[in-house]
Amino acid sequence: MLEKTPETTVNDTAHPFDRATQVTAVGGRWRGTASEDYFAFVGPFGGATAATMLRAIMVQPECAGDPLSVTVNLCAPVARGTFDLTVRLIKATRSTQHWMVELLQDDGVAAFMTAVFAVRRPSWSHQPATMPEAPPFDEAKPLPDSGIAAWVRQYQFRFVEGAPGYGNTPHDVPASAYSRMWLSDTTPRRIDFLSLLSMSDTFFARIFHVRGTIVPIGTVSMTTVFHADAADLAADDTTMVLGAADANIFTRASATRPASCGARAGVCSRPPRRWFISRPENRLSG
Amino acid sequence: MLEKTPETTVNDTAHPFDRATQVTAVGGRWRGTASEDYFAFVGPFGGATAATMLRAIMVQPECAGDPLSVTVNLCAPVARGTFDLTVRLIKATRSTQHWMVELLQDDGVAAFMTAVFAVRRPSWSHQPATMPEAPPFDEAKPLPDSGIAAWVRQYQFRFVEGAPGYGNTPHDVPASAYSRMWLSDTTPRRIDFLSLLSMSDTFFARIFHVRGTIVPIGTVSMTTVFHADAADLAADDTTMVLGAADANIFTRASATRPASCGARAGVCSRPPRRWFISRPENRLSG
Repeated sequence: MLEKTPETTVNDTAHPFDRATQVTAVGGRWRGTASEDYFAFVGPFGGATAATMLRAIMVQPECAGDPLSVTVNLCAPVARGTFDLTVRLIKATRSTQHWMVELLQDDGVAAFMTAVFAVRRPSWSHQPATMPEAPPFDEAKPLPDSGIAAWVRQYQFRFVEGAPGYGNTPHDVPASAYSRMWLSDTTPRRIDFLSLLSMSDTFFARIFHVRGTIVPIGTVSMTTVFHADAADLAADDTTMVLGAADANIFTRASATRPASCGARAGVCSRPPRRWFISRPENRLSG
Repeated sequence: MLEKTPETTVNDTAHPFDRATQVTAVGGRWRGTASEDYFAFVGPFGGATAATMLRAIMVQPECAGDPLSVTVNLCAPVARGTFDLTVRLIKATRSTQHWMVELLQDDGVAAFMTAVFAVRRPSWSHQPATMPEAPPFDEAKPLPDSGIAAWVRQYQFRFVEGAPGYGNTPHDVPASAYSRMWLSDTTPRRIDFLSLLSMSDTFFARIFHVRGTIVPIGTVSMTTVFHADAADLAADDTTMVLGAADANIFTRASATRPASCGARAGVCSRPPRRWFISRPENRLSG
């Protein structure tokens, strides 16, 4: 359980991600700020919001174990400025904890998270999943700064397959939804639970790829399952992950998209090609 | 939005699933009972518990739209007897609702659910996903009554591939985690949101298949994404679904398993082979 408790205060020289996801104790609650550095179209990038909420759990003194499964529901756009977070330990057993965080702004709950933490124990393990093929990070070409939204500039996207090429009109025939890319903070930062959670929301909406154009869309609910524990992440000591995203059902007013991140192959001191996270997604358009 | 409000009271001739998932209003809360008909080893089958909680949302007068994504966390075994449910509308927007249900027994919260409901609007849709091949339901052989747990007898499992064959000792080499089977209530019952949610927990733990033996395990957190709305389900008017389950990562003290249910091909009056749900899963052993 190394590094399970992130710092609660950061200074000006801190990494932009740590500044953006900082929480401070205020009157029995926790306060965060919708970071301009990670702003999207109508609110802060959902990944940064989710990471802020997860940090609010991990700074609790009684927090034990590592995150296993996190569901964040983004109910309404988070407005510029500060927000308050309430943190509740719903249930603790000998080996698991169930947490809930609510993000409050003037007009009520704008987002909430439920999270299962567990003290992982040695057990049988087995991983038929293989890491997708990819050239090394340095050999993949960075996506030029698209300038679309502030948060996009906080990440380096190095596509290996399925790079975005969005136009003004939709394709006549739906294209593939599959993408594979290296992903890193623009200013490299060691991968931890907070950045993995944020990265799990960085995959451009699959509908953009399939339709070939940007449509109004927002993440409504996102579940991320963690396969690595803190010791794994510390041992891997990496700043980049290989991500793959796909989708196979786009239905009325919603699209579901599985996506996953794998560790960079060949870097880990532990057995490489470990999968860090996987998740499905439910995005609502409109 | 046909059938979106299940009945709150049932009589003795009601289907066992409706009896098991019944809720009644008691002093501002809702009360359910851990059904003996759906009991598992140390508590009621998680799918029945989840369906009871979803029913408690759907009987709320202000509930609008159809379930889109449901996450249920099973924190502790539910004991025999009754339990109380508190239902809270966390946030409503013009087109979406975010609900939370907590299941309370003597010693606190034993389970909770968060659910996104949405009024689905006509939109572009696209489904590269194909339904797995399978012979018709009637041609697939039913799994003999295993007698393992009461809840198993409430379902007809007709395996097409990857039928269970559990022994007393684990395999030397891990076997495939993949299964495909027809699934129906033993007493046929028209598929609705409640039964789909319950069915999404019926897939035998993938680790049983891979190791070839039953190990202590329980569902801790389960997210189900619905691709069909109530009108789709009413139009399909079916009592059986084809399910497929797989897993590709089993890691310390947790296994993640994607699983999905598809409509029976050739039965629907609407375009057949519609996918009803998909979900990942996080099961903890021990």
